[in-house]
Amino acid sequence: MAQQAAQQARIGVTGLAVMGRNLARNLARHGHPVAVHNRTAARTRAFIEEFGDEGVFLPAESIQQFADSLERPRRAIIMVKAGAPTDAVIDELAAVLEPGDMIVDGGNAAFQDTRRREAALRRRGLHFVGTGISGGEEGALNGPSIMPGGSDEAYQALGPLLEDIAAKADDGTPCCTHVGPDGAGHFVKMVHNGIEYADMQLIAEAYDLLRHAAGLRPAEIAEIFRGWNEGRLESYLIEITAEVLAHTDAATGGPFVDIVLDQAEQKGTGRWTVQTALDLGAPVSGIAEAVFARSLSGSAELRAAARGLPGPGETWLDSAAGDRFADDVEQALYASKIVAYAQGFNEIQAGSAEYDWGIDPGAMAAIWRGGCIIRARFLDRIKEAYDSDPHRPTILTDPHFSDALGDAQAAWRRVVSTAAELGVPAPGFSAALAYYDALRAERLPAALIQGLRDYFGAHTYRRTDREGSFHTLWGGDRSEVPAG
Amino acid sequence: MAQQAAQQARIGVTGLAVMGRNLARNLARHGHPVAVHNRTAARTRAFIEEFGDEGVFLPAESIQQFADSLERPRRAIIMVKAGAPTDAVIDELAAVLEPGDMIVDGGNAAFQDTRRREAALRRRGLHFVGTGISGGEEGALNGPSIMPGGSDEAYQALGPLLEDIAAKADDGTPCCTHVGPDGAGHFVKMVHNGIEYADMQLIAEAYDLLRHAAGLRPAEIAEIFRGWNEGRLESYLIEITAEVLAHTDAATGGPFVDIVLDQAEQKGTGRWTVQTALDLGAPVSGIAEAVFARSLSGSAELRAAARGLPGPGETWLDSAAGDRFADDVEQALYASKIVAYAQGFNEIQAGSAEYDWGIDPGAMAAIWRGGCIIRARFLDRIKEAYDSDPHRPTILTDPHFSDALGDAQAAWRRVVSTAAELGVPAPGFSAALAYYDALRAERLPAALIQGLRDYFGAHTYRRTDREGSFHTLWGGDRSEVPAG
Repeated sequence: MAQQAAQQARIGVTGLAVMGRNLARNLARHGHPVAVHNRTAARTRAFIEEFGDEGVFLPAESIQQFADSLERPRRAIIMVKAGAPTDAVIDELAAVLEPGDMIVDGGNAAFQDTRRREAALRRRGLHFVGTGISGGEEGALNGPSIMPGGSDEAYQALGPLLEDIAAKADDGTPCCTHVGPDGAGHFVKMVHNGIEYADMQLIAEAYDLLRHAAGLRPAEIAEIFRGWNEGRLESYLIEITAEVLAHTDAATGGPFVDIVLDQAEQKGTGRWTVQTALDLGAPVSGIAEAVFARSLSGSAELRAAARGLPGPGETWLDSAAGDRFADDVEQALYASKIVAYAQGFNEIQAGSAEYDWGIDPGAMAAIWRGGCIIRARFLDRIKEAYDSDPHRPTILTDPHFSDALGDAQAAWRRVVSTAAELGVPAPGFSAALAYYDALRAERLPAALIQGLRDYFGAHTYRRTDREGSFHTLWGGDRSEVPAG
Repeated sequence: MAQQAAQQARIGVTGLAVMGRNLARNLARHGHPVAVHNRTAARTRAFIEEFGDEGVFLPAESIQQFADSLERPRRAIIMVKAGAPTDAVIDELAAVLEPGDMIVDGGNAAFQDTRRREAALRRRGLHFVGTGISGGEEGALNGPSIMPGGSDEAYQALGPLLEDIAAKADDGTPCCTHVGPDGAGHFVKMVHNGIEYADMQLIAEAYDLLRHAAGLRPAEIAEIFRGWNEGRLESYLIEITAEVLAHTDAATGGPFVDIVLDQAEQKGTGRWTVQTALDLGAPVSGIAEAVFARSLSGSAELRAAARGLPGPGETWLDSAAGDRFADDVEQALYASKIVAYAQGFNEIQAGSAEYDWGIDPGAMAAIWRGGCIIRARFLDRIKEAYDSDPHRPTILTDPHFSDALGDAQAAWRRVVSTAAELGVPAPGFSAALAYYDALRAERLPAALIQGLRDYFGAHTYRRTDREGSFHTLWGGDRSEVPAG
């Protein structure tokens, strides 16, 4: 009772590494008293010493004290490493919480883990909210894009605080919404990261073509990206690409991009996105090519062995073609980007259908407009596409996008063709175009594949002209029989 | 003791669906007395009635009788559905076996399951051999390609029987060898299937281009494939493609390939191959595109919505270009096929390194030369490439293949370029070419990706000119600092 008389915190954060620290500061700066806790108490004390004057913080030395300092029902955010460390903290915290309280996991958990944890805690009467938080350290402090899963009841209690601290889109709406039950939030965050991989790969290919087909210097390409950032490609990634390309390495005096080792690293969410898409039967070739491009770049031994393989005779555009090439590449980049996002949103729809999450894809586009790495003007268009038809099978059929693709396609095809002819690898651009052409094809050679499967494995096929499954007696008189 | 006096079987098969039945018959035809057992005894009796005169069979009504009828140490092959049914039969069988006996799983198990089962049975003193068997019903009866994993000791006891019943390559060697410990056999079988997906996708694209860019009819294309089958592309899949394309549908009198619904199905091993490759960091873009192409073809709603999307103005080759196009496509198909196999073999090498299996990749090429769906003249070349250098980072660097790629590349580039210009989807050809060009690139734009990752997430980068990891203070004075 004495405890209740003391000031209590509206929300708590346990795990005070940089992401947790910045999230706690963001909450406090918005006027919410925040309980803070860390496994090693020294870090809690250091936090209070450094940031204590930014708002009302209630430091806790033990997990029990942390729980005691929270208003009921309690809201406790965990900001620790995904995997076993998260399970360990959940166990500790669950032991001191009471029915109706809530645990929020703001780490980069695999959505299957979130589903498991939510179910286990629900049986104990606790709410569990797995939430994606995008925007890195900077976003956590000044406004991230937030993708919370969990129950409606949990969102009612937690949502207003998260919306407070989230980034705001240009129209002022918070970049946070209730994604859907259990693992929906972490699922959407995973796909967000997969799209980010694809987007960066496309940008890298655009740069590579301007550099190695058109022969432009990094500083010139930086200017081109600056120009693109004034138009429909306006986005955080295009903006910082211009910055990185314009940067000079102090040690060598040459372009920064030339001294960076060309072996891209990855942390796993791109890979998860593709693996999950394969399970869902959602074709995400652009994301897959982006993940593979990173692995390939890091395969030093393979690349060293292959470096002498024969290339084409001609490896540069002639100067007339070079002049219009930057415009062509802009078109190809925009078209390929539309496809990459179309694939990502299809994966979200497939996941939502599989797990019965009821995700509103337009709302996802809306909350990515601020705070996160893939924030872009373009997301307004995706939101509008789903607003006009929430059950749209693909954004490609939205008039804005189909018109843009129609306008871009001649240039897009020239760029893919030029890359192939000159030997500049453009796996992302090519995969996007092949996906586009396959989707719109009247007939696909999948019919031949079905014929082959029936030939060698009696796997049967369906017909275009009547229902049922059939098998041709390939080893016999080649008559057709209805399949078992 | 009375039991021991009666005739005993050298090997047993439990699970008498078509694959198990044919394997038992194959063993018996090679002079090995075979114990046969099925959960429902009626099927065992029907088997004896139908095939009993093909060799010496010892039918067993119970699993105990099955075990009693086998020579010690016992060799029992399980031919049941992968997953839970396999675990159930293993449990029953293990209960009646004795230390030193052996269980062989000839189903399409996931290699991780095989690893788990092998470890569990080893603790009970039993050998467990997970073996890939390729070639379908026909192969099981007349000679499959066999890929057994498990211990050396197990292979000594089992190998000679499997080599007896395996297909024989043209040089007479059996298409069976000891792949490596525990899950190695099922792993290699999985990648084999992934390569099969890629190979079929490339064939389908070749057909589609001849049909929809060059305007040829299926019967004409069948003739082209027949011609290809006389050359370096000679293979079972090319041979049966000609058969399927030449086939006329009796009901309509039109080409068979035109009445088959163009939605390709899949059973999962292609998907596993890609998911596993992602975990191993092995880029298998050709297999991924093949798996995605099948899912896309089956996305009926998506395709229906997208069918009206704008295509290019020109969709046919002019007749002069059309004349040489079949030769170009042959070159593109051969080059892309080399890449698809290079990617598959790299996944095998990556898996072997990860799990310490010591797989000899050349030996895998050798045992795929007969019995299996991807049997091809071309595999002799892969075997030779690894014979000349077993630690070769990629077959692409073997002189035979690098020469072939050098000769093919102009045509290959024209085909990819033509597909892009005319709007015929060629994801497999394009992905293969992009992989080839990326591998041989002096510099990749992965350097830009590393720069972006450092900019937005402080993920650090390495430099080309000195050791260590670095971070640029992008938000500050943009000086470079050594990373933590």
